[in-house]
This record gives sequence, C-alpha cells and structure tokens, in this order.
Amino acid sequence: MTTVRIPTDPEADARVKAVFDDIRATRNTDFVNQMWRTLAFDPGLLESTWADVKRLMATPSTLDPLTKELIYIAVSIANSCSYCVHSHTAAARAKGMTDAQHAELLAIVSLAARTNHLANGLQVPLDPEFDLSRPR
Amino acid sequence: MTTVRIPTDPEADARVKAVFDDIRATRNTDFVNQMWRTLAFDPGLLESTWADVKRLMATPSTLDPLTKELIYIAVSIANSCSYCVHSHTAAARAKGMTDAQHAELLAIVSLAARTNHLANGLQVPLDPEFDLSRPR
Amino acid sequence: MTTVRIPTDPEADARVKAVFDDIRATRNTDFVNQMWRTLAFDPGLLESTWADVKRLMATPSTLDPLTKELIYIAVSIANSCSYCVHSHTAAARAKGMTDAQHAELLAIVSLAARTNHLANGLQVPLDPEFDLSRPR
Amino acid sequence: MTTVRIPTDPEADARVKAVFDDIRATRNTDFVNQMWRTLAFDPGLLESTWADVKRLMATPSTLDPLTKELIYIAVSIANSCSYCVHSHTAAARAKGMTDAQHAELLAIVSLAARTNHLANGLQVPLDPEFDLSRPR
Amino acid sequence: MTTVRIPTDPEADARVKAVFDDIRATRNTDFVNQMWRTLAFDPGLLESTWADVKRLMATPSTLDPLTKELIYIAVSIANSCSYCVHSHTAAARAKGMTDAQHAELLAIVSLAARTNHLANGLQVPLDPEFDLSRPR
Amino acid sequence: MTTVRIPTDPEADARVKAVFDDIRATRNTDFVNQMWRTLAFDPGLLESTWADVKRLMATPSTLDPLTKELIYIAVSIANSCSYCVHSHTAAARAKGMTDAQHAELLAIVSLAARTNHLANGLQVPLDPEFDLSRPR
Repeated sequence: MTTVRIPTDPEADARVKAVFDDIRATRNTDFVNQMWRTLAFDPGLLESTWADVKRLMATPSTLDPLTKELIYIAVSIANSCSYCVHSHTAAARAKGMTDAQHAELLAIVSLAARTNHLANGLQVPLDPEFDLSRPR
Repeated sequence: MTTVRIPTDPEADARVKAVFDDIRATRNTDFVNQMWRTLAFDPGLLESTWADVKRLMATPSTLDPLTKELIYIAVSIANSCSYCVHSHTAAARAKGMTDAQHAELLAIVSLAARTNHLANGLQVPLDPEFDLSRPR
Repeated sequence: MTTVRIPTDPEADARVKAVFDDIRATRNTDFVNQMWRTLAFDPGLLESTWADVKRLMATPSTLDPLTKELIYIAVSIANSCSYCVHSHTAAARAKGMTDAQHAELLAIVSLAARTNHLANGLQVPLDPEFDLSRPR
Repeated sequence: MTTVRIPTDPEADARVKAVFDDIRATRNTDFVNQMWRTLAFDPGLLESTWADVKRLMATPSTLDPLTKELIYIAVSIANSCSYCVHSHTAAARAKGMTDAQHAELLAIVSLAARTNHLANGLQVPLDPEFDLSRPR
Repeated sequence: MTTVRIPTDPEADARVKAVFDDIRATRNTDFVNQMWRTLAFDPGLLESTWADVKRLMATPSTLDPLTKELIYIAVSIANSCSYCVHSHTAAARAKGMTDAQHAELLAIVSLAARTNHLANGLQVPLDPEFDLSRPR
Repeated sequence: MTTVRIPTDPEADARVKAVFDDIRATRNTDFVNQMWRTLAFDPGLLESTWADVKRLMATPSTLDPLTKELIYIAVSIANSCSYCVHSHTAAARAKGMTDAQHAELLAIVSLAARTNHLANGLQVPLDPEFDLSRPR
C-alpha cells in the first residue's frame, strides 16, 4: 500500500519513458523496480532522483561499485528503510557480494550501531588528536 | 562533559591496563583515544567492547580494512554519533582514504539518506524479484 | 499483528466511548482509525494521546491545518513510522494537499535528509551569526 | 547556543513562575534545569510539557522511579539527544543508579542497537507465535 | 521476505545446532524464534550474537530480567525495529509484564521521544550541574 | 572541529567562487554560512548540493517559502542534525516565522515524535481506508 497512486501505464508519459529507458540501458536489464514505478507519479521527482542515483552509483569513480552498495545498505539499515535494504542488498549481490561478505557487512553495521549508542550514552569528549588543523 | 566519571589513572586497574596494552599493540601506536579512556570506568564493558572491535575491525577478513571503516562512518553518520564520525574518519584517513574518496563517501551516504526518506514517504511495495526463494 | 490485544468491543468501556465520540465529532466522520482502536487497550493512554492530538492538530492556531499535517508527515518519515506516514498523508489529502504539493513535500524531506547526513558527516561548526544573543 | 531567546527573568511571567514553583516543590530542590528555563520562551509549551513529565515521571505508578529513568535514558540515547542523556542520567543517579547499573544499562542499550540493526539488515520475518490472537 | 536465504535444515550444521540447543536450554522451551533461524545463514555471526544476548539478558545481574526487557523494547521502538519490538514485547510478557506496565512503558517511551525532539529543536545548553567533576 | 580541512581561501577556486557568488545573489546577502564553506573542500559536492537546495528552496513552487523551512526544520530535528536545526531556524526566522509559530512547530514536531514511537511500539495495523486503490 503506497501513499501515492502508482500510474498503471507510466510510460505513456514521455518523461517517465525516457527515465525508464535510461534505467534499462544503464543497468542492462528489462527490470524497472517499484521505487521508480512509484516515483513515476511525479516525473520531475523521478528525473532528479534517477539523475543523482545514476551519477553517483552507475558512474566509475574513486570507490568501486560493490563498496558503494555496501555503504548504501549500511545507511538504509540505520535509517530503517525496509525497501532500500532489500533493493540495495539485491544490487550488491548482483555486483558480486558473497554470503561471507554480507555476513561481515551486517556484523560491522551492528558493531557500529553498538558503539554509536555507547558513545552517545557516555557522551565521550572529542580527542584533540582528531583536529585536522593541529600540527602533526 | 561525560555521563560517567573518567578514571584519572585508568591503568592502575590491571584489566584496563591489559586492554590499553592490546589497543596500543594492535594499532601500533601510543595513542589510546577517549572512547576507551571513558569506557575504563567499567572494565567489563571495556573488555567486551574492545574484543568485538578488535575481532571485526583489526582482523583480516573478506572486506578490506578501508571498506570496513567507510561502512562504520556511514552508520555513525546515520545514527548521529558525533564522536564516532570523528574517530572513524580519522581511522579511515590513517588507512589511506583520500579527500576524493571521503567526498564520494559523503555523497553516497547523503544520497542513500535521500532515497531512504523518499521510499519511506512513498511506502514503496517490495518487488517479488527481491525474494531469494523464487525460481530464477 | 499488534503488540497488544485490540479490544473487540472497545466502546463497551465508557472512557473509550467518550474519546471515540469526540474523535467522530471533531473530525465530522464515522471513521475511527486503527491507532485509536489499538490505543483503546488502555483508556488512560488513549485519553491523554487524543487530548494532545486534538489540542494541537484540530484547534485553530498560528499554523494552518495543512501545514501542520505536512510537518507531521515529515517527522513520521524521518522516524520511520509506517503507520503515521500513511495516516497523516491521508489526513493531509483530506485537508486539500495536491499531488504536486505531496511531491514537493517528499522532495524537501529527502533534501533535508541529504543535507542532515552531509552536515553530520562533515561536523560543520556553528556560525556565530546564528546566535540570538549577539548584537545585530 | 539555543534556537530561541532564553528569557533573562523568566519568573516575571506568572505562568512560568507557577511551573518553576511546581518543579521545585515536586523535586524538592531549588535547581530548575536549562530545559525548563529554555522552554520558558513559550509559557503554554512549558506548561504542557511539564504537566506530562510530572504526571508520568513524578507520580507513583506500576513502574518504579529508577526503572522509568532507565527507559528514558535508553530512548534518549537512541534518539541522539545529548541534553536528555545528560539530564536523565543525572536524574537516574539521583534516584540511586549505581555505576554497575549504569554500565549494565549502556551494555543493554548497545546490545539492543546491535540486534536492531541486525534484524533490520536481515529483514527477519515475524514469528506467528508473537500473534496475541492465536490460540495457546 | 528476508535478505538472506534461511537454511531449510539449519541444525544439520553442528555449530548452528549447538547454539539452538543452548537457546532451548537457556530459555527452557522448544521454541527457537526466526531471528536465530535467519542468523543461521552464518554460524559465526549466530554464535557471537547469541553469546552477547545470553551474557547480558539471561545472566543474573544488577538489573532484574523484566527491567532489561523494558529497556530493550524502548531502544527497539526508537530504532524502528519492528521484529525486535515484537520479540522483546513477547519476552517481557513472558517475564511478567502486565498490561498496565506495558501501557506505562509506551507512555514513557513516547514522552521521552517528545522531549528528545523538543530539546533537539531548542538546542538546550547543558547545565554545569550535570558535570561529574564539579565540587558538590 | 570538522572532519575535513576547511579551505582558508575557498574562492581561489573558480568553481567554489561561482557557487558562493550564486548563494550571495540568490539570498541577497554577503553571508555565506559554514555549511558551504566546509563543503568547499570538494567543489563537485558543493555544486550538486547547492544546485538542489537552490532548486527546491529558492524557487517559487506549490509550497510557500516559510512552510518549506518548517518542514526542513522538522526533518533536521528528527535526524538530530544540530547544525541544520540552527541554520534552518535562522532561515525560517528570516522568512517571517514568529515566536508563536516556532513554539507551535516545536509542539507539533514533538507530538509527532510521541505518536510515532507509540504507533511503532504498538505496531498498529494499517487501515484499509488508507489504500488509494479502493473504491470510494
């Protein structure tokens, strides 16, 4: 159950069709997942969202594609986005994530959550050593 | 200002000293940061926290050391842990993170946050394609 | 599946009936949504929650009714409350929110999430200009 | 640096003075902490907030006063509210929390955070056994 | 729908069987809930997670068993972990939590969330009285 | 203390200068706040962030400028972004937000947080009435 009405024939809209075509071409698949089908209710929001995802996730850069998906999953877990956890876990798997790497990702995400709550509960003061402007 | 009294001479306690020694040996540095100095108020909590951090972050595994720090930073940002963002950014930098990689990490973390909020606002339904038990 | 047993005949309890009557009268509808039907397991909690919602959301004030619902949706998205996102989106729509306004709300909520994560990742220092006590 | 102007002589306002008097009487101390001094910028918001805190935290009930503070701290840590972590840790200590209990609280809060992130990362399905309406 | 493939015969793995046996013995029940059945996809992650949960939740300590569950529920609500809210509410009920205590827990958790957001919105400054190092 | 080195002469970089000039022109002020001065460490990230903020916050649209700032503050509070709460509260005030509106905003944000935690704690089931595809 979505909070917007999902278009039944989204590609009847030329702007939506252009984005869907680009998604299929960029990802080399016929599959356009529900995130984009739902965003199709507003072509402008669909366009700007896809433009950012394509630029950051589907363009060669200083981080390799799998690492980028692992970071994406980590944030999605911490923000409790069920859809995003599923879609980016599928994407990571498609980019080669093994079961062992997945288990390790989950172990690190939960360890970070644990020490995040510990540091916030203790209100640990910052070490001056972290200051980038101090002489070293 | 912490929520616990930080021991003034933490290594007077043998259990604390053993952990601090292990931190220094594992990291090959004399620097023991405030997280551990604060946790020293309870040797048991200090021991179990360090044991987990050492096992997951300082042991060779399926993910490389820098990738693990990037994941840690991502979760710490999403959980708004100021101390953890600082300490793990410093750790990532010590493990070779460049300014360009840092910028890209921040760009991906914020993109993920953006689509997390979008998917939660839309309440996007799960694609059956994400189901691991379906035939493929 | 709730974590409490939802009463099968909630209005058999006089305190619950009084709240449900007030909800119907205040909202001018026969529909009492599941939030209140579930809260009926504890009449005191039901009463105090409804009193606050009525006072802040159903009483004329300095912010107009639609703006108040937009703020409510924004917080509910950020806190990952699926039920609240649905119920307050429905409420906003009932108060006149158009599809274009909904798309814009979602765009702003996700932009805010993006810069929230960016500012937390950068640990941006506060500008003294934001200090209300400085001369201007 | 607050986002509102803190009144310099808050008790010049009769409604503020009445709340401050009630805080002092209820807590049997002369100390009125900054939360209330800041909320004094809007007497109505001050009154409704204090009324709820007094009713739930300072009135005998089914949970003992220290347990209530531990719950309060737990939520405040998870919501990254630095001020609330400090103020409710001080309150818990005033109600008898020992260092060992504090350490245990922090250990449980961080364990919960760890398994919360794990369950969200795995998207664990609900056990039918948790359904309150099934025969037992 | 999980993000990992749940083993169909988890106890065929000796390490998994050992953990499940310990869960059954520790809890004195035949019921092994889905969290552990899902974690069985990685025996190492299963072992370390159960070890921590057993040590903190199933061992006599300075906080009583029900209080520990209440704290666990509080964190799980704030972190929007649906599975954890369900499983720990069931655990709390098994340890004697009454409906009135449950209602009070929920009231305090929501009150804390309310003042957490208020304090973060106001950016209330810390009282020097909370500093543990000041003379008293 | 930031996690990146803030450029001492940011406008020596032509891309940074172009963005700062656009910020000053768009906002009709000489003041360029720390968010942008910090983001200047990576001109690309600065450009894409400003482009989005300008497009959504500084362009006439279906929501009025003040409403947009109120939504922005609401999300920033829920995400515990101290910097963003300060900067957007200042922006809202510059766009005419009165003290009474500010108090009401904070009251609604905290009410939403309260019922968010309540609904998540109760795990309230969705009303079929919220489904947009049902006949009405």
